[in-house]
Amino acid sequence: MIERHVTRIIHVGPLPIGGDSPIIVQSMTNTDTRDVDATVSQIQALAAAGCELVRVAVLDMAAAESLRAIRDRIALPLVADIHFDSRLAVAAMEHGAQGVRINPGNIGGRDKLRRVVDAAKSHGVAIRVGVNSGSIEKDLLRRHGFPTPEKPHALVESAMRNIGLLEEMGFCTIKVSIKASDPMTTVSGYRALSRRTDYPLHLGVTEAGGLVAGTVKSSVALGILLHEGIGDTLRVSLTADPVEEMPVAYGILRALGIRSRGPEIVSCPTCGRTRIDLFTLSREVERAVATMKSNIKVAVMGCVVNGPGEAREADIGLAGGNSVGIIFKKGKIFRKVAEDELLAVFLEELKKMDQS
Amino acid sequence: MIERHVTRIIHVGPLPIGGDSPIIVQSMTNTDTRDVDATVSQIQALAAAGCELVRVAVLDMAAAESLRAIRDRIALPLVADIHFDSRLAVAAMEHGAQGVRINPGNIGGRDKLRRVVDAAKSHGVAIRVGVNSGSIEKDLLRRHGFPTPEKPHALVESAMRNIGLLEEMGFCTIKVSIKASDPMTTVSGYRALSRRTDYPLHLGVTEAGGLVAGTVKSSVALGILLHEGIGDTLRVSLTADPVEEMPVAYGILRALGIRSRGPEIVSCPTCGRTRIDLFTLSREVERAVATMKSNIKVAVMGCVVNGPGEAREADIGLAGGNSVGIIFKKGKIFRKVAEDELLAVFLEELKKMDQS
Repeated sequence: MIERHVTRIIHVGPLPIGGDSPIIVQSMTNTDTRDVDATVSQIQALAAAGCELVRVAVLDMAAAESLRAIRDRIALPLVADIHFDSRLAVAAMEHGAQGVRINPGNIGGRDKLRRVVDAAKSHGVAIRVGVNSGSIEKDLLRRHGFPTPEKPHALVESAMRNIGLLEEMGFCTIKVSIKASDPMTTVSGYRALSRRTDYPLHLGVTEAGGLVAGTVKSSVALGILLHEGIGDTLRVSLTADPVEEMPVAYGILRALGIRSRGPEIVSCPTCGRTRIDLFTLSREVERAVATMKSNIKVAVMGCVVNGPGEAREADIGLAGGNSVGIIFKKGKIFRKVAEDELLAVFLEELKKMDQS
Repeated sequence: MIERHVTRIIHVGPLPIGGDSPIIVQSMTNTDTRDVDATVSQIQALAAAGCELVRVAVLDMAAAESLRAIRDRIALPLVADIHFDSRLAVAAMEHGAQGVRINPGNIGGRDKLRRVVDAAKSHGVAIRVGVNSGSIEKDLLRRHGFPTPEKPHALVESAMRNIGLLEEMGFCTIKVSIKASDPMTTVSGYRALSRRTDYPLHLGVTEAGGLVAGTVKSSVALGILLHEGIGDTLRVSLTADPVEEMPVAYGILRALGIRSRGPEIVSCPTCGRTRIDLFTLSREVERAVATMKSNIKVAVMGCVVNGPGEAREADIGLAGGNSVGIIFKKGKIFRKVAEDELLAVFLEELKKMDQS
């Protein structure tokens, strides 16, 4: 169903982004980057949850200098997030950053940008041009107005101008993001940008909000874009522990049929017919599959009569009610068990299936 | 940006659905419908959270008979969800249901369906044709195979056949749903359906899963469809308290620029630059705005330097760090306050703005 927009391939460290490469799930730490232990520990938690590239804030020289120690202890490609200060960008690359996120236009003028680009070239570092509502140049805001869903021009023109600054210096290991907090401005902006450039695009909605509100905004905006074939890497920003971004990011990719990670659970919303504690069962099954690797489909249903039929596409499922539990496979009843043994028997069967 | 697919208008009780009417947010209780107090109490909680139409399961005659007592105590239009049993459908309507959800094809044959349709006509009741993966007729499954994103035909043909059964009896106060648990099957199914019929469409992903997983699936599938102008009413199914569906449903509509309900919060994901407990601040502000009615945009930012600029489209915002807090309006600093007074002063200012 999805025809992916053709982009160039760049590499961040060994990781390819763009072209036919998998759409990469990334995140950013919220630790103090100078605290190497805390930062490494968060990066390892992110990696275990599926993160494939990680960005850290570099606020001062001490943070830049800590990158080497961080990189030595992690397996993910490391990107330094830098605002305004070209010296920090150069230092970050000297200390092992495999990517930097900057706005070339506000790094302090052409000479300083030249130093950043030279360092990127000599260290083989990729640059993300990261434009957002707050970084748009004043003349573009005057000409185009603040970006709206109908007129994302200021964001797009700012990105193109920043790309141009790098290209003028012969640099093209670039990916691009234009983040807005409004999902529809994000959608129209990336659509316009994808018609203007073939650099890989980093998708995200900025300042998306808390777990549920942010999940909705990111899922709607990134869902529409990825379904149209736009986007080569994504970050789901939530005002929450960054590890919580991972199930959302993979959930979006899975919903679109693009990528999956581990078993999928379908569970019914419960209704007046439900005669079993489905919320608890569903949570327990979710917890059990979190560490599984296979792509089996698991159903948790509240209704012995309708459950197996409604979830017949599930590889394995349970349904319960009125003290009887059933386990079914592909819509056919596999075993009947007493309700109080249902979860244990089911998890055992699930584990066998995952490992087979 | 959105050109809405043209559908007929039907009414469920006094509530118009379809045409140019607002896209209606609905839900379903998970109480025992015979327990009138519990059901009414959940419906009132749903209404307070923004629910505009509510469905209850009718499993037996006692449940059907309790509908009158429920309807007497609620303000929302009431729909009865019925499987297989035409007598329950007729009884539900006699006891005040303003809509029924059935599958005309499995209600027990033409004579029984005739009795249901006659009751619907005489009581002015709308019928939702509710097709899902589990209700597809065997001959359609044989001919088209199980519905997939590429071939949703069995679902769509089943819906058209069920619509036809009602139309043959001169009944056309119909809305239609075709629910699959796979988001892309949902998307391709509704797209195909919207080309075949102009009855209003009820959108939903069935068995979507728990809070986060279900929110992602519903946001992606319903986001794509509503953005294409497809859908007249929606239900977000979560394996959770149905009240939790409401912020997700309104979040989807708001993300698409279709409808909003109360203030919107943007909040930054926090990064190594954050020097304030933003998760707590964000939660407190979310709690405060939940009861507000105005459509102001509120920003909660972790960074005094970048916050006001990045969130300049917000009507009011706060940012903090290193024991200084600021309150800004439309990107301009409005007040500086000590960090420990920031939340209280901000909430007071927010309340004034909401009421003005």
